[in-house]
Amino acid sequence: MAAYLPTAVVTNEHFTQLNGLASDWIIARTGIEERRKAGPGENANTMAVAATEALLAEIPGFDPAGIDLIVAGTYTPHDTIFTAAHAVQRHLGVNEIPTVSISSACASLLNAVEIVEGYFATGKARRALVVVSEHNTAYNNEADTMAGHLWGDGAAALLISKDRLGPHDLHIAEVITGGAAPVGKADEAVTLKPVEKGIVMPFGREVFQQACLYMTRVTQTLLDRHHLAPNDLTYLIPHQANLRISVNVTKQLGLDPARALNNIQRLGNTGCAGAAIGLAEVWGTLQTGANVIVTVFGGGYSYGAMLLKK
Amino acid sequence: MAAYLPTAVVTNEHFTQLNGLASDWIIARTGIEERRKAGPGENANTMAVAATEALLAEIPGFDPAGIDLIVAGTYTPHDTIFTAAHAVQRHLGVNEIPTVSISSACASLLNAVEIVEGYFATGKARRALVVVSEHNTAYNNEADTMAGHLWGDGAAALLISKDRLGPHDLHIAEVITGGAAPVGKADEAVTLKPVEKGIVMPFGREVFQQACLYMTRVTQTLLDRHHLAPNDLTYLIPHQANLRISVNVTKQLGLDPARALNNIQRLGNTGCAGAAIGLAEVWGTLQTGANVIVTVFGGGYSYGAMLLKK
Repeated sequence: MAAYLPTAVVTNEHFTQLNGLASDWIIARTGIEERRKAGPGENANTMAVAATEALLAEIPGFDPAGIDLIVAGTYTPHDTIFTAAHAVQRHLGVNEIPTVSISSACASLLNAVEIVEGYFATGKARRALVVVSEHNTAYNNEADTMAGHLWGDGAAALLISKDRLGPHDLHIAEVITGGAAPVGKADEAVTLKPVEKGIVMPFGREVFQQACLYMTRVTQTLLDRHHLAPNDLTYLIPHQANLRISVNVTKQLGLDPARALNNIQRLGNTGCAGAAIGLAEVWGTLQTGANVIVTVFGGGYSYGAMLLKK
Repeated sequence: MAAYLPTAVVTNEHFTQLNGLASDWIIARTGIEERRKAGPGENANTMAVAATEALLAEIPGFDPAGIDLIVAGTYTPHDTIFTAAHAVQRHLGVNEIPTVSISSACASLLNAVEIVEGYFATGKARRALVVVSEHNTAYNNEADTMAGHLWGDGAAALLISKDRLGPHDLHIAEVITGGAAPVGKADEAVTLKPVEKGIVMPFGREVFQQACLYMTRVTQTLLDRHHLAPNDLTYLIPHQANLRISVNVTKQLGLDPARALNNIQRLGNTGCAGAAIGLAEVWGTLQTGANVIVTVFGGGYSYGAMLLKK
């Protein structure tokens, strides 16, 4: 598991100059202090490849020729035909394997993992690469005072094997995903219509409320099913849309706030990559017996939770 | 299985007036005589919903509440956050089920079916809706003399059940999918970069050649695995990118040309919906003992084949 972050940092002061939004105001409402921005020539495909490279650098003995499935997630596509999954496949040079890109908005990481589980169950794959990559700044209108300051860019890559590969592996105990498109203003609360351009979030308050509701509920379901108390978790990694959502979910669950992992302060909302980048950040520190839940909620609406054990 | 086609017809004469391309010239090179164009307010999401409605109208006793998985495919998204799969879910009002949209370019139908097979194998779903929808005209530059005249709009929906539901069911004997992104100019031969806008196909000749190669090969693989001769097929339904590709694949396989199903003459290239619309067109005519192969090839590159039996 590894992440890629573009080097350019955009501070809150950029939005103060642009839109008159004070840094303290942004921090109080979102937790965001700064975010990363992809450089010229970077996009969702190049960042997916860079995250894959970072992953391979972490497992020096591993031969990418053993990869037999690639699933990429993004709602900020560079190319919907030569997709992020294709870009990773081309970079690796592993031909003739199932390769697909998906979007369930900010929930794509967990839908991708669930798709991988399906390929494992049918016996069509044993070693899958999941890559999530968001180039929010390509579709963001910085001058949008409602949501322009929220978004950041980044990517992460996760190798999933049916068989244990090494001592740093985590076991995926269970994944739950769900669409909740019939709920509320799911059809208009957050949208990215490429032809009309731009990410907009006209109903941020409803997204906030539904995110708190769904991430808490699906995390509790997963805890219950596996007979875990909240504080049996080493980390809860919620989708990084707003620090106040994370705080709310943590509080509802009765979880020690120190166990909630957040990177939105440094990275902004990196879409479906946010929780994955968070997981990559703590991957190397996890000890035997660790339990981690990644929970997501996004536009559409889509939600999910995944329990990992070491 | 059912299709939705927008009502507006665009004839070749439109491109004669616009670009000076003679209708005979277009027909000789592509087989296309006319194509459909989505109306104002229509898009990939509304057409996905319309195809779903057409499907439900075909199975009057069926309760959509029994659907437990939705997979939509499109490379011409209306919204990458509230995706086509979400739009279908919201329309059906079936909450809290896995819902995901995908793109493997023109091959998405088969990747979607393969994903469904995975959910069936894990036991997480038993009754899935696959919807493919393309709004090519939203991203097409009609003035592009290389490819502007190729594209049409349309959608199709397929209900897949783990258990047999009725006498009109087909059995999915096998699905093969593959990415071939490392091959040739897969990264630039056909692309749709939403930020830069537009579908372009600067290397159409290579796409043509690879389509002929891959669709023939994967179809032959499927025939061999199931001990079928080409003329044991009731229909071969190839991806509808160019009538000459279909003719070439049919000839290479030694298949009776009358058994190759084509709709590109009437519909143009409807992307990942093309072969699905073709399947919907013959669905009601298939008799017990029928064998049908759907084979696809698209940008990226992605390819696949599916054997259906009645």
